[in-house]
Amino acid sequence: MSEEPGRTTRRFLTPSFRQVQQHLRTRMEALGMTVTVDSAGNLRGLFAPSGASSRRLILGSHIDTVPDAGAFDGVLGVVLALGLVEFARTRGLPLALEVIAFSEEEGVRFGFPFIGSRAVAGRLDPAMIAFKDAEGISIRQAIEAYGLDPTNIAHAVVDDDAIGFVEFHIEQGPALEAEGLSVAVVTGIVGQGRFDLEFIGHANHAGTTPMHLRYDALAAAAEWITKVEALALKTEGLVATVGRLDPQPNAGNVIPGTVRLSLDIRHARDSARRVATDQLLEQAEAIATRRGLRFECTKKMDEPSVPMDERLTAFMTDAIEAAGLPVKSMPSGAGHDAMIMAGRMPTAMLFLRSPGGISHHPDETVREEDVESAFRVGERFLERLAAEVRQRISETK
Amino acid sequence: MSEEPGRTTRRFLTPSFRQVQQHLRTRMEALGMTVTVDSAGNLRGLFAPSGASSRRLILGSHIDTVPDAGAFDGVLGVVLALGLVEFARTRGLPLALEVIAFSEEEGVRFGFPFIGSRAVAGRLDPAMIAFKDAEGISIRQAIEAYGLDPTNIAHAVVDDDAIGFVEFHIEQGPALEAEGLSVAVVTGIVGQGRFDLEFIGHANHAGTTPMHLRYDALAAAAEWITKVEALALKTEGLVATVGRLDPQPNAGNVIPGTVRLSLDIRHARDSARRVATDQLLEQAEAIATRRGLRFECTKKMDEPSVPMDERLTAFMTDAIEAAGLPVKSMPSGAGHDAMIMAGRMPTAMLFLRSPGGISHHPDETVREEDVESAFRVGERFLERLAAEVRQRISETK
Repeated sequence: MSEEPGRTTRRFLTPSFRQVQQHLRTRMEALGMTVTVDSAGNLRGLFAPSGASSRRLILGSHIDTVPDAGAFDGVLGVVLALGLVEFARTRGLPLALEVIAFSEEEGVRFGFPFIGSRAVAGRLDPAMIAFKDAEGISIRQAIEAYGLDPTNIAHAVVDDDAIGFVEFHIEQGPALEAEGLSVAVVTGIVGQGRFDLEFIGHANHAGTTPMHLRYDALAAAAEWITKVEALALKTEGLVATVGRLDPQPNAGNVIPGTVRLSLDIRHARDSARRVATDQLLEQAEAIATRRGLRFECTKKMDEPSVPMDERLTAFMTDAIEAAGLPVKSMPSGAGHDAMIMAGRMPTAMLFLRSPGGISHHPDETVREEDVESAFRVGERFLERLAAEVRQRISETK
Repeated sequence: MSEEPGRTTRRFLTPSFRQVQQHLRTRMEALGMTVTVDSAGNLRGLFAPSGASSRRLILGSHIDTVPDAGAFDGVLGVVLALGLVEFARTRGLPLALEVIAFSEEEGVRFGFPFIGSRAVAGRLDPAMIAFKDAEGISIRQAIEAYGLDPTNIAHAVVDDDAIGFVEFHIEQGPALEAEGLSVAVVTGIVGQGRFDLEFIGHANHAGTTPMHLRYDALAAAAEWITKVEALALKTEGLVATVGRLDPQPNAGNVIPGTVRLSLDIRHARDSARRVATDQLLEQAEAIATRRGLRFECTKKMDEPSVPMDERLTAFMTDAIEAAGLPVKSMPSGAGHDAMIMAGRMPTAMLFLRSPGGISHHPDETVREEDVESAFRVGERFLERLAAEVRQRISETK
């Protein structure tokens, strides 16, 4: 189900997106769920057996993809959630479960991510529905064209009495594979800083300018990049990346006069991230000064970390143990719907191993045994929750 | 005299180029010179007073420019040569002098430099006149359109009995200014190596990939660039430059998977350059191996150094002393018509200070006092040569 033959590309509210919703709706209805699509395009199935808790547990992930994507990023979490509904039904667990297939997480179509979970969490600024895609179609128009009512988006917000939100998602990184583990409980979404930096020297002739009379912006940037890497290597949990670098004039026989570059720096503890950031920016300034260059820096992003809920995360840890798996906990280096939902309700998240650490690529995959492991963890998690619900019900009686 | 209003741009055989030739022709004729334009578009004025040596000394430089150029690169050497003809005439020196305003040195129009001096030195491969400019006009067609006969280019080659060639040119670098000197005698044109290099790692997510599981091509390149700079700083006379660097995918939140970059390395001694080159390429290989990356390298250029003529260079050094100036000798880090002419005949070259080291830029300039210094050096040089010619004539009698 893709916009493009031979590649998986499925953007928010496109025809292939509708195909996925129709497929999931059929599966949800077969499970006895009540299915709706909210005004933000989220497909929501409610499983509320008689005798269940009045408070729902929400499970889910997103169904949109990046262009030329893999098959598992997002939608695996929805399918796993449906499997868990089937488990709860078969076992007669006294749990109300809502599965949400979030409509938009990647931010591809409108350059703006998490539209689905923002709407559910009540974090979607109404002004944002004027954002336009590459064809000039606004979010509002896209919602209307899909047959939904954009004036109704506020009603997508979840009831406040939900127990919480749980997301299963592939890790999209190499950490679990490197440790030979199937799954990990996510402790939180790391905080993230992004900076645009510039070293400003003088472009000069590569042949006629002696080394000691150069103001080489690339040599300065290179020196600094080695510092960035060194600090991140020695600081537990820190990742720091110079991903973009543009020297000018970028000609083989001209000493680079200016270099613009990016810094992306993440850590689960905001204080650790800020200390490291300050240290790196001071080093950049010092390198520039010693070399007679100027250094400029613009902060583009300073997102604090989002911790997962302690209680639900402890349940998930117990569930991993109960499933007979080694317990591994780790922060998520990337944003997920769980990050948005955590601002609204108690949230927990489980990562599945990503072979090769590959994601956002057709080679993205997941091992069948890891899906089974995640499923077993989910089962134990629901049982743990059901036990609590049963106890509360019996206490109330 | 420019192709573009408000900027100095004067490419080979364009109308503004013809304007310069007409201006110089008038000045040459006023000095009693016999003026021709050879089939490579070189303007050549011969000053052959009666009683002069039969062997000519050739003086000159080029009259084409880069786009948005300064006013002195090239043409200053032609105008200085005319001043020296006037000096020789006034003093009645027994010297035959040919001044050549080379038609093409920068290589802008046809992507192929030194067309003028190659033709004079007999180093112009006839196949090259099929090269085309951006409008699809070949060198052959451009020569025809200018009113010249491209089949006649072989006749542009200089007679073998010339005494030698002398070029005055701005330094186009900061060395003379840094030492507070007006002029320097050029010992030779440095040899030059150019390489296209590539570090090949794996692109990965900047948030989800821990530092110790990265194969960051930019971090590898940065480490190597610091080695390039360090080696060049500690190796007398070596200049080494990474001027071009292209990371892929060049996005702030993606670890660079590949980095292509250039190395430009120059030294007056070819052996020193080759030793340094080998050392740097070995270091690149070692850095890649240690990091689990691949390293690839393509040699694009390996031009040996071109020494200037010892005897004429000694004359020039004597002339600097006789002009009461401090003697400074240095290699040229850039190519010049003198480099081509040195393959044909004894050649010497004098650099004039470039304020700010600036060239190929509208801010390129030259100090009046330095032009006067260069002129005095040229006068002493001609007197030295004339004394030798007089002695030979008297010996012959």
